[in-house]
Amino acid sequence: MDAFTFYCPTLFAFGDGEEKKTAELVRKFGGSKVLLVYGGGSVKRNGAYDAVTASLQEAGIPWVELSGIQANPRSGKVYEGIELARREQADLLLALGGGSVIDTAKAIGIGVGYDGDFWDFFTGKAKIESTLPVGVVLTISAAGSEASDSTVITQERGNLKWGNPRTDIIRPKFAIMNPRYPMSLPPYQIASGAADMMAHILERYFSNTPDVELTDQLCEALLKTILNAAPKAVANPKDYAAQADLMWAGMLAHNNTCGVGRAQDWGSHQMGHELSAFYDCAHGASLAIMLPAWMEYVMSHDVMRFARFAVNVMGCEMDHSNPERTAREGIEKLRATWSSWGLPTSFAGIQAKAEDIPAMVAHRAERPNGFPFGNFVKIGPDEMADVMQIAANR
Amino acid sequence: MDAFTFYCPTLFAFGDGEEKKTAELVRKFGGSKVLLVYGGGSVKRNGAYDAVTASLQEAGIPWVELSGIQANPRSGKVYEGIELARREQADLLLALGGGSVIDTAKAIGIGVGYDGDFWDFFTGKAKIESTLPVGVVLTISAAGSEASDSTVITQERGNLKWGNPRTDIIRPKFAIMNPRYPMSLPPYQIASGAADMMAHILERYFSNTPDVELTDQLCEALLKTILNAAPKAVANPKDYAAQADLMWAGMLAHNNTCGVGRAQDWGSHQMGHELSAFYDCAHGASLAIMLPAWMEYVMSHDVMRFARFAVNVMGCEMDHSNPERTAREGIEKLRATWSSWGLPTSFAGIQAKAEDIPAMVAHRAERPNGFPFGNFVKIGPDEMADVMQIAANR
Repeated sequence: MDAFTFYCPTLFAFGDGEEKKTAELVRKFGGSKVLLVYGGGSVKRNGAYDAVTASLQEAGIPWVELSGIQANPRSGKVYEGIELARREQADLLLALGGGSVIDTAKAIGIGVGYDGDFWDFFTGKAKIESTLPVGVVLTISAAGSEASDSTVITQERGNLKWGNPRTDIIRPKFAIMNPRYPMSLPPYQIASGAADMMAHILERYFSNTPDVELTDQLCEALLKTILNAAPKAVANPKDYAAQADLMWAGMLAHNNTCGVGRAQDWGSHQMGHELSAFYDCAHGASLAIMLPAWMEYVMSHDVMRFARFAVNVMGCEMDHSNPERTAREGIEKLRATWSSWGLPTSFAGIQAKAEDIPAMVAHRAERPNGFPFGNFVKIGPDEMADVMQIAANR
Repeated sequence: MDAFTFYCPTLFAFGDGEEKKTAELVRKFGGSKVLLVYGGGSVKRNGAYDAVTASLQEAGIPWVELSGIQANPRSGKVYEGIELARREQADLLLALGGGSVIDTAKAIGIGVGYDGDFWDFFTGKAKIESTLPVGVVLTISAAGSEASDSTVITQERGNLKWGNPRTDIIRPKFAIMNPRYPMSLPPYQIASGAADMMAHILERYFSNTPDVELTDQLCEALLKTILNAAPKAVANPKDYAAQADLMWAGMLAHNNTCGVGRAQDWGSHQMGHELSAFYDCAHGASLAIMLPAWMEYVMSHDVMRFARFAVNVMGCEMDHSNPERTAREGIEKLRATWSSWGLPTSFAGIQAKAEDIPAMVAHRAERPNGFPFGNFVKIGPDEMADVMQIAANR
């Protein structure tokens, strides 16, 4: 186990009705005027918007609104939010929604007090040293941004989907998590979210760091929980127990509880981001396509780790005379599972084209330190093309 | 899953050499003069005292010392520490040691700013509303007090070993965790600490709350990790990987990561506290005696949960025609495992006497709300005597 620092000072209020605590938590973390950030109609349809604004109103906390945040959130809304927060002197950002809304709020938070372009924090030109406090009312179980140390924004100049350098400073101060809100999502989005959280765990699971039994066990515990809950929630979105498991697992999958003290890979995410940037597909879906392809490609690097995944997570029988067969079976079973939830697991599933692979590789290469990426196995431009070709060939 | 709040804003610096960050973390959390709390010679022998004081000295942070804290920490040292902190105007308490030292620092922390007797917080006469910040340099993997919301102190007036009403206010601000420090402990103490952390998980695992698959999985992951690491650390205390697993598992076992959203039992702890109060045995040893006896006594309440424990944690084969047999086998295997680590699992192991059972039950009855205790199964005076008799009969 490597040395590490873990600091996740987020207050979680979890359960049905917890959104009634919105105003109390806003005040606890120093908010006296709120910038409420959200997407579109869904939070109005499922009652979340009404509940949250009612709580603020009763407590006499004024707020202004920034709405229209979309999936794969874009820089334009961040610039707009920074201007609005400054003009209205908001002192707390309240994200009402899922990962895109939270990531937008986080980016606004670091930008408000900074004189230059917030994008400087993403290019490395500036270092994140402070933020306006961010609170969350979560309505989608997926990204884990409600307690994570990162935000991913697409810069419209150049269509660059980048994450910030990770820092505990941008972890939200509080997250209200009511498992009833995701019940109104389409099953495809529930499935996509579950794949996203599994990917967050697998990016940590495939590691070269020795002696990481504890976090291996935690990864496997979370993966098994998601594999158990996701098909239930997809089949019946009103299943409270399944939605509760997914919502809490999504947070634990990405606040680094299961990633401390070990090198992490994150190569599949980089390739998934390119797929999303080119085809605007759901983040989870891009991972359902790229992660199994990556697993096939790198499997020979550590067959026994893939065999362990197959046995301990996917429930395969260990073939002691042929661990590679077991390892391969685990990957196939993962693909079949995601497919059974209605997710794409190949280029064909999102009408992506093999001809675009060189353009996606070239686009990745434009970013500073674009190649190589990944830690479990280093991926250069040729390897990226090969992995993408596996996903295209299915 | 029940609704819950989870708030653990403790910064963890984990790994070999992290104690060099002591001064930096003291300053981060507002300390300008430290009250350093520790036990006896062990932190001087293993280098922890020298490393921590060197860090403070280099940074020019003054400190005063309160030493001589013993296992099952007593109120006398708390009163002494409160006086000392007031007189010297210390603004941060630095606990250097294990659970007893940390619990003492926590109790001092809530007492310094309170006009009355700190024990009022334990009797319920006063409510904990603030504390001096507490930092930890951990040298014993066991109690999990480095991030927990509780402290257990023995009030010398009446020999009352009580915990405070749980509150996030008393969670330490930071915990420095170097897995090398426990290497100098006697194997018996390492084993006792591992049993303590397993008990912290099992008190949460045996629950009547439905739909708690996620936390069940996390409990099992931690229990398996401890079962894997503890015998290695007992056989070879210099095994860094095993000590690292135990140290991080001990924290996760008690910061409530695996207990959120479910009713918890804590009956065995109550009975263990009486055993410790009468015979001054190690806390972990008292649990190794009382917990399996309690498990036998309550098993019929939910045989399938005990069978799950036997299969998923203790590695027993499921006897589908006789789940009770599997359940019983799991308990026996737990006892045999603890015994193989050198721990007592019966009254005889600590020279406790069955004749004292009525006195222990009577002592428990003296405390306000002494009976019934426990949530999985309610334990009254007769039941407590029966459970203790099981432990005495072995």
